[in-house]
Amino acid sequence: MILLDGKSLSKKIKLELSNEVKKITSSSTRKPHLAAILVGENPASQTYVNAKEKACTQVGFDSTIIKYDKNISQEDLIDKILQINLDSNIDGLIVQLPLPHHIDEYLVVNSISAEKDVDGFHPINLGKMILGVDCFLPATPFGILTLIEEYGIDTIGKNCLVIGRSNIVGRPISILMSRNVKFANATVTLAHSKTKNIEKLTMDADIIIVALGREKFLKANMVKDGVVVIDVGINRIKSKNSKTGWRLVGDVDFDSVKDKASFITPVPGGVGPMTIVSLLKNTFLSYKNKKTKT
Amino acid sequence: MILLDGKSLSKKIKLELSNEVKKITSSSTRKPHLAAILVGENPASQTYVNAKEKACTQVGFDSTIIKYDKNISQEDLIDKILQINLDSNIDGLIVQLPLPHHIDEYLVVNSISAEKDVDGFHPINLGKMILGVDCFLPATPFGILTLIEEYGIDTIGKNCLVIGRSNIVGRPISILMSRNVKFANATVTLAHSKTKNIEKLTMDADIIIVALGREKFLKANMVKDGVVVIDVGINRIKSKNSKTGWRLVGDVDFDSVKDKASFITPVPGGVGPMTIVSLLKNTFLSYKNKKTKT
Repeated sequence: MILLDGKSLSKKIKLELSNEVKKITSSSTRKPHLAAILVGENPASQTYVNAKEKACTQVGFDSTIIKYDKNISQEDLIDKILQINLDSNIDGLIVQLPLPHHIDEYLVVNSISAEKDVDGFHPINLGKMILGVDCFLPATPFGILTLIEEYGIDTIGKNCLVIGRSNIVGRPISILMSRNVKFANATVTLAHSKTKNIEKLTMDADIIIVALGREKFLKANMVKDGVVVIDVGINRIKSKNSKTGWRLVGDVDFDSVKDKASFITPVPGGVGPMTIVSLLKNTFLSYKNKKTKT
Repeated sequence: MILLDGKSLSKKIKLELSNEVKKITSSSTRKPHLAAILVGENPASQTYVNAKEKACTQVGFDSTIIKYDKNISQEDLIDKILQINLDSNIDGLIVQLPLPHHIDEYLVVNSISAEKDVDGFHPINLGKMILGVDCFLPATPFGILTLIEEYGIDTIGKNCLVIGRSNIVGRPISILMSRNVKFANATVTLAHSKTKNIEKLTMDADIIIVALGREKFLKANMVKDGVVVIDVGINRIKSKNSKTGWRLVGDVDFDSVKDKASFITPVPGGVGPMTIVSLLKNTFLSYKNKKTKT
């Protein structure tokens, strides 16, 4: 079994990015700049936004966190986004989801300029992804592809099962894995809450990408020997052995599945760090796109 | 076996559309209007464009065909599109594909205003389709969904195999069939040229949508009893019994598969007429959207 070590790979990529940033900004007036909007006090959202800010600092990007009370109106939030869209000093803008219920997430994401949508959630970026033209790929799927490529996993003609059809992970990775490009070209099945006989599908799969949000869902008796397992789940469970009182586990029962897998991601330290590094890559791409235009 | 009779259903829908058009335009100054651009002399393209014009006439739409020599420059073609984008008397604009090799199809389609892209090929419409928000669905997949709904086919949790990953049929219908809505919610597998063991997949499938462009590819010995078969293929083969010297056959060996199928589309008369009627529905939607705005 080979561990798909997102923690190490993300460090390596951050080092490369950091060197590139140094080279470019030595002759330029400003650094790449990621802005994040955080609404409300959701602890997980705060953790994610802080981790993104820290990663920006590590690679030499500027970063700005704009915090709003959970009662901010949709109109005021969108006004701020439109203002950032026009700010030529900001390359990437993300709005940390979920948003409070009185705000329409689609309208908010749709108001981010596609050129600054480094999360890859804007419809025009998703549409370009379908068509295989240059775009910002959604950060988590982009991170998964980077892991697959780094470890040289054979995907061509393999049966790839994606479990979970969210717009930010399952759906886009199912599209990306079946594209006619290197490190894709898999025969992809997308499973979801209405899927019957999931065990039959998991047993047939050469590659399983689980993005379900259900702790330890995938067990050893559900997979075949040599399977490649990519675990996107991040579930908090209570833990006596942890200072915080909880620890993170994935959607995969890692301890049992690892013995049958040829490659497997740990949680934490697998897909999670790759998501953040993909956001940095998209931001850097946006920065370079702007430089090319001016 | 029940025939999925696209010819009859499309007639019924055209009659309904025609009545709606009469009602609306009796109190309005203009009719819905579809414009089609045809480049070069490709006989199949000419046939399709003529069929679309005829369908427009049948439902009381205005239609315009703009024909260009195959040597038209990409710039001139796009200039014409931008001009039509601004023409408030035109609701829908399609550019018949394929285009000559010196023209970039993506750039051309991308220059059509998303509000007039009644073919549903523009990235923003594809992206909205992923997100499940209102948009113009690509015409052929939209036609397939209409057939499935009309015949009340049970799709929830069924294994749906889509063969072919084109941007205009296979890819979008694979996305649409797995959405969390009525007459979808299937467990979808997308097969393509790199897929291995296609017979295993076809044998496991409850619903097979074939959009491959290979005549009589799907045979009776590849499917299980009771399968639902939707044939998107339109292949011309030589025929002694036809005045033209050729006839149309699908990607499915209809004569043998029909005895095992619960539902099956014929070719011609299945998906083909549904594609045209979907184009009309999208054009009418665009017309009504405009009326709402003004």
